[in-house]
Amino acid sequence: MLNLNVDLGQRSYPIIIGSDILHHAGLLDPYINDRDTFIVSNGSIAPLYLSTLKELINSKRIESLILPEGERTKSVSTLENIYDALAEKRLGRDCVLIALGGGVIGDVAGLAAATWQRGIDFIQVPTTLLAQVDSSVGGKTAVNHSSGKNLIGVFHQPICVLSDIKTLNTLPEREFSAGLAEVVKYGLLADQEFFEWLESEYLLILNRESNHLEYLLERSCSIKARLVSGDEREHSVRALLNLGHTFGHALERCLGYGEWLHGEAVASGISMAAELSLRMNWLNDSDVSRIRTLLMNFNLPVDPPKIELKKFVDAMAYDKKIISNKTRLILLESIGSAIIVDDYPENHLSKLLEEYFAK
Amino acid sequence: MLNLNVDLGQRSYPIIIGSDILHHAGLLDPYINDRDTFIVSNGSIAPLYLSTLKELINSKRIESLILPEGERTKSVSTLENIYDALAEKRLGRDCVLIALGGGVIGDVAGLAAATWQRGIDFIQVPTTLLAQVDSSVGGKTAVNHSSGKNLIGVFHQPICVLSDIKTLNTLPEREFSAGLAEVVKYGLLADQEFFEWLESEYLLILNRESNHLEYLLERSCSIKARLVSGDEREHSVRALLNLGHTFGHALERCLGYGEWLHGEAVASGISMAAELSLRMNWLNDSDVSRIRTLLMNFNLPVDPPKIELKKFVDAMAYDKKIISNKTRLILLESIGSAIIVDDYPENHLSKLLEEYFAK
Repeated sequence: MLNLNVDLGQRSYPIIIGSDILHHAGLLDPYINDRDTFIVSNGSIAPLYLSTLKELINSKRIESLILPEGERTKSVSTLENIYDALAEKRLGRDCVLIALGGGVIGDVAGLAAATWQRGIDFIQVPTTLLAQVDSSVGGKTAVNHSSGKNLIGVFHQPICVLSDIKTLNTLPEREFSAGLAEVVKYGLLADQEFFEWLESEYLLILNRESNHLEYLLERSCSIKARLVSGDEREHSVRALLNLGHTFGHALERCLGYGEWLHGEAVASGISMAAELSLRMNWLNDSDVSRIRTLLMNFNLPVDPPKIELKKFVDAMAYDKKIISNKTRLILLESIGSAIIVDDYPENHLSKLLEEYFAK
Repeated sequence: MLNLNVDLGQRSYPIIIGSDILHHAGLLDPYINDRDTFIVSNGSIAPLYLSTLKELINSKRIESLILPEGERTKSVSTLENIYDALAEKRLGRDCVLIALGGGVIGDVAGLAAATWQRGIDFIQVPTTLLAQVDSSVGGKTAVNHSSGKNLIGVFHQPICVLSDIKTLNTLPEREFSAGLAEVVKYGLLADQEFFEWLESEYLLILNRESNHLEYLLERSCSIKARLVSGDEREHSVRALLNLGHTFGHALERCLGYGEWLHGEAVASGISMAAELSLRMNWLNDSDVSRIRTLLMNFNLPVDPPKIELKKFVDAMAYDKKIISNKTRLILLESIGSAIIVDDYPENHLSKLLEEYFAK
């Protein structure tokens, strides 16, 4: 069992990683401390792990709410359902909310925790690879607005993240692969050695070997924790975590959410960012080929699907306008080193997009 | 024109107080800095001050949204209306939201600003006495849930508070008096001299003499700023600001919101807290009489209306359960000095309530 610290001063918290730790009696006691608990989960995860989690909790009262599965659950109306349940069960400012599930559950339950009585404690128990390596760490909470993903949210750090890699055994292959896109991202943006380890060990990773998953989580969460600690609210270095995401978000926006998984769009976005980095003469052909090969070995798409050029450009422009007011890209100087690029030759980008997308 | 600082490290901000400062060209330039602005106001305030405020703003784009008046506007559905307007007008992470109005507008617009794209800058332009001396300062934002007031919210500090006392000229008398309940509270909890000044100057205050209002705002906001600076998220001293509010909230809950104004319930709550402080032998008869007299001079109710004892006790218990998990009261050691009391003789309280309320 590993214990990583996300260093955020008074808001610091541990990420506890291990196999079968949901059966590790007493593990959550220091965080729950006898308080009332409220578990939020979904219809596919609850039957698998809810009763195990309840046994792990020493608390006078354990209440729970089971939400429907899927991205549509990340809505203001789900927030209202959570508020209603909290009020009905008279759960006050001192209770602890636990999110048991993937990114959707963590995001919406985290936002409910952040806004119930101006913030209650919450614990993340992520059960998907994507949530374990990415969304459960760093305090980003959100729901979607009809005009875009994650437009409504706040930063609210958990008091503890508990990642039991045994829960990954029940994860469908496609979702497991989607999580690996974020893992590849960590190697690319900050850790060449880790990237090389992924290249050599990909088969054992796909086999979900316990030791491999533990190491993979440790490296991924360490990198994320370091960037989050240095920049909690994404004013600077935390933006590096968006490698592959500017293109990825535009792909998701064009395809409609749900067609591709987020990780699949990110994989395509990463290879587009790699291609642009090649044209900046930062990466060479062999780098780009290694990146594409690794993503493909993880059964991830490396080329975007057929989209009309204008549609893709509009989707990027929407992101630019509403999200950041500038076209900011995360590019690669080398494998293991990413940079935030605000000004790059506009024609490099437009040429690249013209090659990818039909007019 | 006065400039008070709310000292919160990186989140510090000024409270600018003065008469007719909405006409003071350039005053908001350092805070808006040419960014897109979005003004949220209501149907009674907008006709009076929206165009003046727009003229004060140097910005390429000024958009606005006018909400219905009244406590019912503090709802999740109003939040959704604000999100829809922000999305429709493509207002991104860099825009500035301005709340123009009383406490309702500040609370709901503040929560929208806190949650739009994980937090955008916002400016408070309070136009009621209650909002100028209390709700616009300190970063509490909230909407109501059907089961209670302010149950959904976060802390999100404004980047600037602009209090133009000239806007108080248009405030109905009853609302002006309600704001004075919070002003009396500040004197009582922290500033004996200020309390004595209120006692001697009450007629000129009721006449809304400009210099008197400016001084009254300065003292009130200074006390609030000091307590907020020392305890942003109300873990300790900030709770002193709840003097009169535990009883006041229970009164509002029993009467139904809207029957009495919040400040009126607080006035009654203050005199109940004073009465209990007398029974603790902290205040004497003359202190209690001075407090009641000042509140009455400000046309505020000092005795609670007829409520069934059980109903009132239940309302206090609800507050206890859902808000704080303990019956915590703010009592007075003397005029000018309040303390947080977690353990007091339970029978003092029950006897007091029995005298006030019919069985």
